Amino acid sequence: MTNIIDALHWRYATKTYDLTKKLDSTQVDMLIESVRLSPASFGLSTYKLIHVKNTETREKLKAAAWGQTQISDASDFLVFAAKTNLGEADINEFINDVSETRNVPVESLTGYADMIKGSVGSRSSEENIVWAAKQAYIGLGILLTAAALEKIDATPMEGFDSAQFDEILGLSALNLKSIVVVAIGYRSENDTYSSLAKVRQSKQNLMIEK
Amino acid sequence: MTNIIDALHWRYATKTYDLTKKLDSTQVDMLIESVRLSPASFGLSTYKLIHVKNTETREKLKAAAWGQTQISDASDFLVFAAKTNLGEADINEFINDVSETRNVPVESLTGYADMIKGSVGSRSSEENIVWAAKQAYIGLGILLTAAALEKIDATPMEGFDSAQFDEILGLSALNLKSIVVVAIGYRSENDTYSSLAKVRQSKQNLMIEK
Repeated sequence: MTNIIDALHWRYATKTYDLTKKLDSTQVDMLIESVRLSPASFGLSTYKLIHVKNTETREKLKAAAWGQTQISDASDFLVFAAKTNLGEADINEFINDVSETRNVPVESLTGYADMIKGSVGSRSSEENIVWAAKQAYIGLGILLTAAALEKIDATPMEGFDSAQFDEILGLSALNLKSIVVVAIGYRSENDTYSSLAKVRQSKQNLMIEK
Repeated sequence: MTNIIDALHWRYATKTYDLTKKLDSTQVDMLIESVRLSPASFGLSTYKLIHVKNTETREKLKAAAWGQTQISDASDFLVFAAKTNLGEADINEFINDVSETRNVPVESLTGYADMIKGSVGSRSSEENIVWAAKQAYIGLGILLTAAALEKIDATPMEGFDSAQFDEILGLSALNLKSIVVVAIGYRSENDTYSSLAKVRQSKQNLMIEK
């Protein structure tokens, strides 16, 4: 397997995908699993991942994202969506999961549950959506790494109309809001972006020692 | 090298660190490099990484984070801090980097520069800090993956007083704001949390197909 630093050098935000090359379900499942296992604050589930399989829907989403072809042309397309009504029900469900998974009584988890409820309850809905979005970005970072390690190309994208995406995917009715999206598949041989040198700040510029 | 899914199963938010086991500089440099190479919107640098080496400073930070011992006891401690004055100067510096790295004239990048300036300029300072924070969380996700692949333990933490951290680290004067922190090192053999089963929602719960 590729070293992670090599993999991060290898990857780039793919611009043009090879229409003929598709990921198999094992590959897509591995990427989904990497998101599912991603760390999250408290371990709480604050977002969902939408796998958009319908071709027409992907065309509509492309139109709501300045026509970026990755949305329709990549093998697969995923949308991270934050829960907009995060609250006691989610926390109780999570605590039940903890109880079952670890085989401990729910009553023994009351202190933990109250701490999470206090934290989530101290923020407005808008603030909790930002918080959920940050957790989703951890998952995105991990998915991009998992993809690069397996030489799967990916394009993370923020440039889309979130309200239109929510409308097209019917997310509002599910109490979800689209946050960030990612196309995955294989680069086209004609993608000139693949040969551009990666631009990153120097270590000296990134780091501060205290 | 470990498979990424195995690595994500192996990792957990380490509670108690082994005080006697330290990372060597090669390991820390690899983790920093994984953050440096992390994808970011436009490729723009929107955050810095503070490596807190001073023992007294780490004690003060611990006190500003409900006494969580990982801050003082882990081998190393890192703070992701968002730029609070993101603007034209950062974008011009980035464009100069692109010009030098890719050996193209700055003038040929005017359209790209204007697009980034338009995007950053369309948001308030507060909104740009949230945006920078999201980019930092991609870096955090990648650092956590890089660590797990190398069997380095890590604890991502949001539970700290950001204003106090900024004060202790002198970040405001640098136009920075602490966003999220991570302790890295080796778990103590006595950390009972290491044997707890990981709790994650099911794939069915995470995924929606459209």
